[in-house]
Amino acid sequence: MTEASNPHDDAKKTAALEELLSIRGSIDNIDAAVIHMLAERFKCTKRVGVLKAENDIPPSDIDREQRQIERLRKLAVDAELDAEFAEKFLNFIIREVIQNHLALRS
Amino acid sequence: MTEASNPHDDAKKTAALEELLSIRGSIDNIDAAVIHMLAERFKCTKRVGVLKAENDIPPSDIDREQRQIERLRKLAVDAELDAEFAEKFLNFIIREVIQNHLALRS
Repeated sequence: MTEASNPHDDAKKTAALEELLSIRGSIDNIDAAVIHMLAERFKCTKRVGVLKAENDIPPSDIDREQRQIERLRKLAVDAELDAEFAEKFLNFIIREVIQNHLALRS
Repeated sequence: MTEASNPHDDAKKTAALEELLSIRGSIDNIDAAVIHMLAERFKCTKRVGVLKAENDIPPSDIDREQRQIERLRKLAVDAELDAEFAEKFLNFIIREVIQNHLALRS
């Protein structure tokens, strides 16, 4: 046994690695679910982009975005998710959507 | 009737606005689902952060991240979501997770 090795620490680390693997399985399941939800969301926003482009509706709608941000911040708090992160997340998605809408018009 | 108004165009725009409202309802439902999935994901990564900090496991794991990116890119293609976006999305989430893990140690 080397100086750095300690049976108690080794067992603790093995248990930690096993738990880590199990949690990673859950994370992978959640990620697959989120990717499929986002695929559906982009189908929706693609149709919104077509409707806006065909009817001269501006690609960006600041009032709608503000309402979405407020709503998601509240949902995040209820779900014990950081509200700042929820806002950052929505802004990340909206940036992508607006780029796609602009690309539809170019 | 003003010069700019045309009954056909008005009806078309009204129908477009109605469809837009309906799609926005779906987008809001999807966003609520995603926020709740992400809340669960951050519960998982919070536990991962504690396990790593308590067992001297490095906060970042490049091999794991690479496998996650490859897997999500494949899932995205199957779901007709842009694979580049799926990768950007995962990197966005991982950046937040690593910041949280580092904060746990500081």
